[in-house]
Amino acid sequence: MSNAFTGPIPTPSVPAPDIVRCAYMEIVVTDLAKSRAFYVDLLGLHVTEEDENTIYLRSFEEFIHHNLVLRKGPIAAVAAFAYRVKSPAEVDAAEAYYKELGCRTERRKEGFTKGVGDSVRVEDPLGFPYEFFYEVEHVERLTQRYDLYSAGELVRLDHFNQVTPDVPRGRKYLEDLGFRVSEDIKDSDGVTYAAWMHRKQTVHDTALTGGNGPRMHHVAFATHEKHNIIQICDKMGALRISDRIERGPGRHGVSNAFYLYILDPDGHRIEIYTQDYYTGDPDNPTVTWDVHDNQRRDWWGNPVVPSWYTEASLVLDLDGNPQPVIERVDKSEMAVTIGADGFSYTRKTDDGGDTTAVEGFKLGAQV
Amino acid sequence: MSNAFTGPIPTPSVPAPDIVRCAYMEIVVTDLAKSRAFYVDLLGLHVTEEDENTIYLRSFEEFIHHNLVLRKGPIAAVAAFAYRVKSPAEVDAAEAYYKELGCRTERRKEGFTKGVGDSVRVEDPLGFPYEFFYEVEHVERLTQRYDLYSAGELVRLDHFNQVTPDVPRGRKYLEDLGFRVSEDIKDSDGVTYAAWMHRKQTVHDTALTGGNGPRMHHVAFATHEKHNIIQICDKMGALRISDRIERGPGRHGVSNAFYLYILDPDGHRIEIYTQDYYTGDPDNPTVTWDVHDNQRRDWWGNPVVPSWYTEASLVLDLDGNPQPVIERVDKSEMAVTIGADGFSYTRKTDDGGDTTAVEGFKLGAQV
Amino acid sequence: MSNAFTGPIPTPSVPAPDIVRCAYMEIVVTDLAKSRAFYVDLLGLHVTEEDENTIYLRSFEEFIHHNLVLRKGPIAAVAAFAYRVKSPAEVDAAEAYYKELGCRTERRKEGFTKGVGDSVRVEDPLGFPYEFFYEVEHVERLTQRYDLYSAGELVRLDHFNQVTPDVPRGRKYLEDLGFRVSEDIKDSDGVTYAAWMHRKQTVHDTALTGGNGPRMHHVAFATHEKHNIIQICDKMGALRISDRIERGPGRHGVSNAFYLYILDPDGHRIEIYTQDYYTGDPDNPTVTWDVHDNQRRDWWGNPVVPSWYTEASLVLDLDGNPQPVIERVDKSEMAVTIGADGFSYTRKTDDGGDTTAVEGFKLGAQV
Amino acid sequence: MSNAFTGPIPTPSVPAPDIVRCAYMEIVVTDLAKSRAFYVDLLGLHVTEEDENTIYLRSFEEFIHHNLVLRKGPIAAVAAFAYRVKSPAEVDAAEAYYKELGCRTERRKEGFTKGVGDSVRVEDPLGFPYEFFYEVEHVERLTQRYDLYSAGELVRLDHFNQVTPDVPRGRKYLEDLGFRVSEDIKDSDGVTYAAWMHRKQTVHDTALTGGNGPRMHHVAFATHEKHNIIQICDKMGALRISDRIERGPGRHGVSNAFYLYILDPDGHRIEIYTQDYYTGDPDNPTVTWDVHDNQRRDWWGNPVVPSWYTEASLVLDLDGNPQPVIERVDKSEMAVTIGADGFSYTRKTDDGGDTTAVEGFKLGAQV
Repeated sequence: MSNAFTGPIPTPSVPAPDIVRCAYMEIVVTDLAKSRAFYVDLLGLHVTEEDENTIYLRSFEEFIHHNLVLRKGPIAAVAAFAYRVKSPAEVDAAEAYYKELGCRTERRKEGFTKGVGDSVRVEDPLGFPYEFFYEVEHVERLTQRYDLYSAGELVRLDHFNQVTPDVPRGRKYLEDLGFRVSEDIKDSDGVTYAAWMHRKQTVHDTALTGGNGPRMHHVAFATHEKHNIIQICDKMGALRISDRIERGPGRHGVSNAFYLYILDPDGHRIEIYTQDYYTGDPDNPTVTWDVHDNQRRDWWGNPVVPSWYTEASLVLDLDGNPQPVIERVDKSEMAVTIGADGFSYTRKTDDGGDTTAVEGFKLGAQV
Repeated sequence: MSNAFTGPIPTPSVPAPDIVRCAYMEIVVTDLAKSRAFYVDLLGLHVTEEDENTIYLRSFEEFIHHNLVLRKGPIAAVAAFAYRVKSPAEVDAAEAYYKELGCRTERRKEGFTKGVGDSVRVEDPLGFPYEFFYEVEHVERLTQRYDLYSAGELVRLDHFNQVTPDVPRGRKYLEDLGFRVSEDIKDSDGVTYAAWMHRKQTVHDTALTGGNGPRMHHVAFATHEKHNIIQICDKMGALRISDRIERGPGRHGVSNAFYLYILDPDGHRIEIYTQDYYTGDPDNPTVTWDVHDNQRRDWWGNPVVPSWYTEASLVLDLDGNPQPVIERVDKSEMAVTIGADGFSYTRKTDDGGDTTAVEGFKLGAQV
Repeated sequence: MSNAFTGPIPTPSVPAPDIVRCAYMEIVVTDLAKSRAFYVDLLGLHVTEEDENTIYLRSFEEFIHHNLVLRKGPIAAVAAFAYRVKSPAEVDAAEAYYKELGCRTERRKEGFTKGVGDSVRVEDPLGFPYEFFYEVEHVERLTQRYDLYSAGELVRLDHFNQVTPDVPRGRKYLEDLGFRVSEDIKDSDGVTYAAWMHRKQTVHDTALTGGNGPRMHHVAFATHEKHNIIQICDKMGALRISDRIERGPGRHGVSNAFYLYILDPDGHRIEIYTQDYYTGDPDNPTVTWDVHDNQRRDWWGNPVVPSWYTEASLVLDLDGNPQPVIERVDKSEMAVTIGADGFSYTRKTDDGGDTTAVEGFKLGAQV
Repeated sequence: MSNAFTGPIPTPSVPAPDIVRCAYMEIVVTDLAKSRAFYVDLLGLHVTEEDENTIYLRSFEEFIHHNLVLRKGPIAAVAAFAYRVKSPAEVDAAEAYYKELGCRTERRKEGFTKGVGDSVRVEDPLGFPYEFFYEVEHVERLTQRYDLYSAGELVRLDHFNQVTPDVPRGRKYLEDLGFRVSEDIKDSDGVTYAAWMHRKQTVHDTALTGGNGPRMHHVAFATHEKHNIIQICDKMGALRISDRIERGPGRHGVSNAFYLYILDPDGHRIEIYTQDYYTGDPDNPTVTWDVHDNQRRDWWGNPVVPSWYTEASLVLDLDGNPQPVIERVDKSEMAVTIGADGFSYTRKTDDGGDTTAVEGFKLGAQV
């Protein structure tokens, strides 16, 4: 199986399914009560339904049944990255597409989760469990229910982020699937470290982060404004769980969004994200960042903690077993940018040279 | 002279001058054009007057002549920490008070800077150049000049912060001078690491940070809202000077303010600060933080960079020569909280014990 | 008694009590459950204690027992405007001061409300029930309890506002009592329409609004930022009680604060207020506004609704009976600024003249 | 000609052009210097190019040449509502589509404005000058140029709003053209008062407002956050042009956006707008508002000023002459909601009835 995850990926002859957007993620958590405290009590996601094994959650402005499913299980992992497609027929298209790719697929007319109808799940060429569906139960959109609006309210599911060893391989596959690249990180040797790819008119529906994979790097929810994200930090401080704030808040170079990364009780990483930009024009300019640019990951040059580069969640195959993790062969972004062998610059030299601005790099000043 | 900076400080028999608030700082900068770019072009402080050697700056809501004087000189340092007192007579009171303390004083009826009248400057018992004045030129208060309001507007001078080796010694002196302690950081052995002290009804007009001194740790300006501070970071990113963002933005534990530390071209540290709390009641509760509490300096547990503990600006005597720096003898906050011999916790153990929550401490995860 | 409310008010020979700040208001409400829904469920004030007849509420950053007391009673009215003084002895000073003024006073060592100790209440020369106290129970200051922080959180009691027929008479009395005027509204005939007066270092602890009185115009709570006030509007929309939004949100000309006026179930007016300015210097400049300046009450020139000028709450004497309301004799601000006989301008004419800028006045455009 | 604007509009047999988004508006202004002061100095739009007759402006996050063209001319009017299409071939499609509709069209390979290539302009069946183009010059996208970011920065062109007598007629035409309705306002008699229609994934690219037309009601720019809009009001106050604030700021019921309407020197209405919601799913729920719901236009129930209903800008035909304005025959929203014959409610009665909540309606309280 792991073989399938490393070879070249052909472009199918049948059309790719017409994907609307990333729609929900299903994650396995080991202690449902603890996870409920995190996602409902801390983050304020809204419970559409729940039973003793599963909680269906949605964001404030969502009108479909859920954006996140928490399912109790023995091993913390991701069971599905689910995309909504444009019509019921596109579920058929997805099934045919992945069958031609030689991927294992499973079709369920009644859906894999409550609230969702006819769906197909696949083990994709990168090893990720992707789902495609159109039919979904509409629920109350809370957009103007300001009586329920918390100070750190999460209003939309924004994107997924996936760790994969070979970013160009994954990028080619996702471009075939109809995603467009908004931004990427490269070096002058041609190595790609990460790529951001979208269907809806934001910077991404999913991104590929170079690393040992397949693993889930994070799932991101959007807030209306920046102060909403600051409130989440403040609340985690008040609850004395600031150690679960992994990175941020900060301003991304890539995407320009204001961001925060926090860790759920199982270590699943959640990003809180706001104010990226419109990408809906066909010729939306792609932004390429130099991996040595110290403002690419944080516009203010604040250091990326190593765990952010190294830790990620397992993903499951269609039998519910964790996919084996394949090591990245290409250079790692962490290695080339920090520590003894890495370098980063805040700005180029005045003569246009590419040398390290030693004074300009803050991480070296850390203990 | 340095002797005077370490012995016990008597309480004078004459009344302390009635101080209103911290009012301005005079700093020496080595390249006036570069400093102007920083304070005027980047930070948007408003020029009241300027000539080839000096720039007088004020914040948006200020009605006195200046909050900051940039004076060109050979060595970057602080020439004065200036406080406004309640009446002209209080300048006399200040002079008498410091004379009784045996401090060197200098009285100038015409003031030491433009815009300010009758003033006294002193070399105080901690070695700092303090100024006291009442007479001052009123200038246009820009409060409603929203046509001049920048996205990162600095609206008030908020406080000074001074590095001194012996915090309890300095605290006693400032309490005699009429300051009240709003918050401090201690350990269970009785060592004091820092103290925040106010005259106006905010958390502080000045603070004492334990370390080699006398040195100036920072001077702080307030913004209206948190997004104004984020804009300053964003602008420094755009100007490719993110390496001059030293620490933050973050939420302080102490003071509860949202904060940012940046460095001017000479390395003088500027804090941008917003939303601490009212302290005007006579029994305003003093908040004492445990030095090992990892949320005391940053409520989100983000690491304090070592330079923030070790670097500070020289201060001048009344002849314009740098005061010698005396080493701190007590334990250093940096040493006891980070690195091999330090420890910090995010929360106490469940049984009320005081052990380190290893998982709860983020700095250890840094490279 | 009403006579006492109109004649000249002598300056007592004994010193005025040293007032720290406006501290709490006690209001009588006719339906305690409805009022609880308004102040607790809608506005999120924190309950310190409650029983079947009384609810004690405080704001987020308060450390004294309460800022607002809701007491069930037959007639909606205000029972006390309570100020905190600097020491226990200042309660004696207050009692002596009002006795010399010939006012009825009542001293209670055990306080008039729970949580407050030795206090004196007076029927003041304007007919208002003023209270002075120092002793108070300290309670948990919620400043960093961000787990309790709502999107529209009220963080401080900011000020009272009182309607009185003769503003100069009231101003003289309050200046004697130690208040300083930060701003006022006048016309070129010398009529004063309103005055803002402070003890703490903000624009006001109380204001006098010219009109039939003694009546309570409003009590104001502060938020941290402007978006918190917008959230309160949004929530009132969601609850379909937008008809209880009386005026705003807007930016005041006077005080420069961002504001909102809403009405509680009994019609008591509450202001939500943020970001006025520091007034702590002894020579803080007083700002005088022309009553015809259409930006004085709303910096954006949005109309003041007539009810805001005409409606206010009754106040009680020390027996709990409503004080009779005396009519204003001077010109009314509403009459001189809107309607057939009034005029307002957005800007003066270019030649410095004082004519109405007809195009500049928005209210005339209303139905 | 006016005949063409009132009869039924057939659905063409050829496919509608694939429209991406509203892209720019060309307006005629009578005093270019005054307009420059408004759009550049006050609002901070960025000048891409300008000459003595024309100014090309773009918003902060735009990468195409312009979002607004100011052209000097004798009569204030709108010369073009320009949409970007998905490819060069779609310009052909647009031309063919309108030719089949019998509309006058004009094709210019070199474009009608600088920076734009092959375009077609049409006099559409509602009498509006629509333009369709794909080719456009890319310019610097200022997204991360925070050194240029003003406190009231306009970041995107959001939408157009058109006044037309017969809303259902216009809606049918725009639905044929590929727009989808996100929200509308109706009454129980079946009269439609307004409709919001989108191509990009926001609430609208254009809206139809019932009234005498064809006229341009407004063009809207988006900000990042709500405080940016408040700053624009504050700045207009500082410049003493608050009389050019026509309505708001407020929260829309329809669209949920935070809004402000201001008037340029010629009376062209500009909306500043932020935080509507995602509409990209094919089954995005349409929201229908009752015309009598007093929260539909302003969620806080604040009154709509009559000029907002009655005033609008003329539009030009392809010869540059103003289109004749045809009167609306259907009931007017203003008439049915305010004044003697109108009614509005804040909430329905408790028994579900539809009666006016007299107390709930604020406009009646206005002078």
